[in-house]
Amino acid sequence: MSNFIFSDHDTTTLAKTFGTPLYVISQDKIEQSINEITSALTAENIDHSINYAGKAFLNTAMCRIVKNAGINLDVVSEGELITALTSAFPPSRITFHGSNKTDREITLAINSSVGTITIDSLEEIPRVDRIAGELGKVQNVHLRLSPGVEAHTHEYITTGTLDSKFGIPLSQAIRGAIMCKEAANLSLTGIHCHIGSSITTMEPFAVAMEIMLDMFMQFRGMGIDLSELNLGGGFGVIYLPGDTRFDLRAYAKTLRQSIDKFFEKYPDEKVPKIIVEPGRFIISEAGITLYTIGTIKEIPEVKTYISVDGSLADNPRPALYQAEYHAIIANKFGEEPTRTVTVAGRACESDTLIRNISLPDPQRGDILAVMCTGAYNYSMASNYNRLPRPAVVLLKGDKAELMVRRETVEQVIQNDLTPSWLE
Amino acid sequence: MSNFIFSDHDTTTLAKTFGTPLYVISQDKIEQSINEITSALTAENIDHSINYAGKAFLNTAMCRIVKNAGINLDVVSEGELITALTSAFPPSRITFHGSNKTDREITLAINSSVGTITIDSLEEIPRVDRIAGELGKVQNVHLRLSPGVEAHTHEYITTGTLDSKFGIPLSQAIRGAIMCKEAANLSLTGIHCHIGSSITTMEPFAVAMEIMLDMFMQFRGMGIDLSELNLGGGFGVIYLPGDTRFDLRAYAKTLRQSIDKFFEKYPDEKVPKIIVEPGRFIISEAGITLYTIGTIKEIPEVKTYISVDGSLADNPRPALYQAEYHAIIANKFGEEPTRTVTVAGRACESDTLIRNISLPDPQRGDILAVMCTGAYNYSMASNYNRLPRPAVVLLKGDKAELMVRRETVEQVIQNDLTPSWLE
Repeated sequence: MSNFIFSDHDTTTLAKTFGTPLYVISQDKIEQSINEITSALTAENIDHSINYAGKAFLNTAMCRIVKNAGINLDVVSEGELITALTSAFPPSRITFHGSNKTDREITLAINSSVGTITIDSLEEIPRVDRIAGELGKVQNVHLRLSPGVEAHTHEYITTGTLDSKFGIPLSQAIRGAIMCKEAANLSLTGIHCHIGSSITTMEPFAVAMEIMLDMFMQFRGMGIDLSELNLGGGFGVIYLPGDTRFDLRAYAKTLRQSIDKFFEKYPDEKVPKIIVEPGRFIISEAGITLYTIGTIKEIPEVKTYISVDGSLADNPRPALYQAEYHAIIANKFGEEPTRTVTVAGRACESDTLIRNISLPDPQRGDILAVMCTGAYNYSMASNYNRLPRPAVVLLKGDKAELMVRRETVEQVIQNDLTPSWLE
Repeated sequence: MSNFIFSDHDTTTLAKTFGTPLYVISQDKIEQSINEITSALTAENIDHSINYAGKAFLNTAMCRIVKNAGINLDVVSEGELITALTSAFPPSRITFHGSNKTDREITLAINSSVGTITIDSLEEIPRVDRIAGELGKVQNVHLRLSPGVEAHTHEYITTGTLDSKFGIPLSQAIRGAIMCKEAANLSLTGIHCHIGSSITTMEPFAVAMEIMLDMFMQFRGMGIDLSELNLGGGFGVIYLPGDTRFDLRAYAKTLRQSIDKFFEKYPDEKVPKIIVEPGRFIISEAGITLYTIGTIKEIPEVKTYISVDGSLADNPRPALYQAEYHAIIANKFGEEPTRTVTVAGRACESDTLIRNISLPDPQRGDILAVMCTGAYNYSMASNYNRLPRPAVVLLKGDKAELMVRRETVEQVIQNDLTPSWLE
């Protein structure tokens, strides 16, 4: 009937122009998500700032989008930090995270004048202090706490429980605060927690907020005035048509209620600025992946497989997390589904992308658009089977340009060397 | 007490010389595994050849090792084929596999004069025939059949069952043979099956062999003389100290018994050459990964996490397949274990590498050697968190040289572009 339009662009034209497999990212949708978060928190009068969690999807163009949107950036490695610096992202708006930072990374972060280093363990405190001292700087730091809130999500993405490699157990928080206070080259400006990913209920956030505000007061009692309270991310997103979207208004109201309760108890106190760290929420729905359908294999009395020209190399999430995705035949948009098929990748691996989806008469050469692939697809892509990684095209209004060039086989091979005895 | 020696090399010296994380590959161990397969099959008088399945681990130096060892090579993509051609691997010894080959790949394969294209579906037959015709060549092909043998392994790596994207259902095999026979530019020289990965029992192979020999006779009755019968790979390997090694002698005996049975039935017939396609078996135990231990986090009454400078970016198998690995502190080899810890990666993700392993007093700066990482670690590695991929060092006798250069952050960023409106 017609072609699938994504962010004002005909996706079949994008496939033709840029080739497949192709990641497509909509800057308009990114900006819309950011605005939604800002509006919800502003409506509840919450003094806040937003850190985009770069690990979900990061490249130099994305850093520029984040910068222009006026929000801040989380990075978790030297590679992400250099990406940000290469894009002229203001270092003061960068937070450096990581459960196992190297000395080299800490040095680079302090030398680059990043706004905040989020300290993840007690043993990191003297290391950051020492390096800051050597560089003659005083570094703003947050302490990442592990508040022990269970957010009931998939095992691999639950990070706020006590049994986690992340953060400092609450029982060690005061000790951490004392260590920071005594450190000559650290300024402890906030505390941080992240209670998990893809959360859709509000209770875990209410509990976390209560614990964090309680910690804030305990630190206050020790003469440490925190100006920031980072609640992490974890806002659930829509992957499938039936999924519930994260309720930003309910989230903002939850924070408001916690703050109001706090003021009932401590009418003369101030509440620190709230920082939120969405990654997936900002980028997931802003991205789709376009594939070309190749082999169609009907296995009598079993099922029909349709294979696309991508694989678990460009979207490892179904294999990693049993993640489910929805797809549309871009050149048959609005047509009635005629058969139920399983979508497989092209890797030499049983890389099922979508099990049992009804599609309108899928044929070789059709363009399949997989929805909500903005997060953790490009960022987790590999060269399995020596497949070059797809290009990423950025859409803004009626404009479409590459933000990441398609990888070449030559690049995949570029680091291969021949030991002398094999020449 | 002493340092861990792998393939005649002090692993702590390798870590110091080449840095960590570091993949280490032993050419001697690769050659030993190949010899073991050859010896076992030769002992049972089985006319055979070995195809190394490149998807397990491939780069130009690996191609040279395979070439010098006198065995053949399986590739599954343009990237793997170009890798082989770049290393001057003889094209006639290459088999091109894949469940969703592109026209471009088929063209490249035929143009490069690869020995065999393994056709994976009926619809591929006219495509390969057409392209071979256009290029004025006759292409040797095999038909990959799906013999419906269930090899009882992990869901993601079971590929020989009927419900699989791979291969042609047995019920369509005769139709496939007729199509090949009628195709002007194809020469059908063999049939192929692959019944799964990491198999340790012999029954599935006996069943597969019986089915394939039966198919061979059916094709014979149609006037198609197959010279090759490819049984695929799937030989199980040792990951943990208690694991059972694949019994090559039992495997060879199983094939022998099937052949003997065949001769009882058809005393005047010849049996085609048997091809086996091990990947994991050849490379897995030939590889280890060296990491430096960083953050050690004791969570009171829960557990202790030790973090290494690698992550699921360089070894996604624990997250993908719940794969288990064994590790040794390289600089404390032979010392008594003192504590049970969980080994985590450095990614911003709950990337547990090994749960509950007893190690001798693990400390920051220790070198952790993870065993049997040769297969599907380097080949599946990503740049998640924008972490550059590790170097790969090759050992041969007392020599050690890089076979893959360490990736740089600059390379990770090399394809980032700035759309015009973001400049």
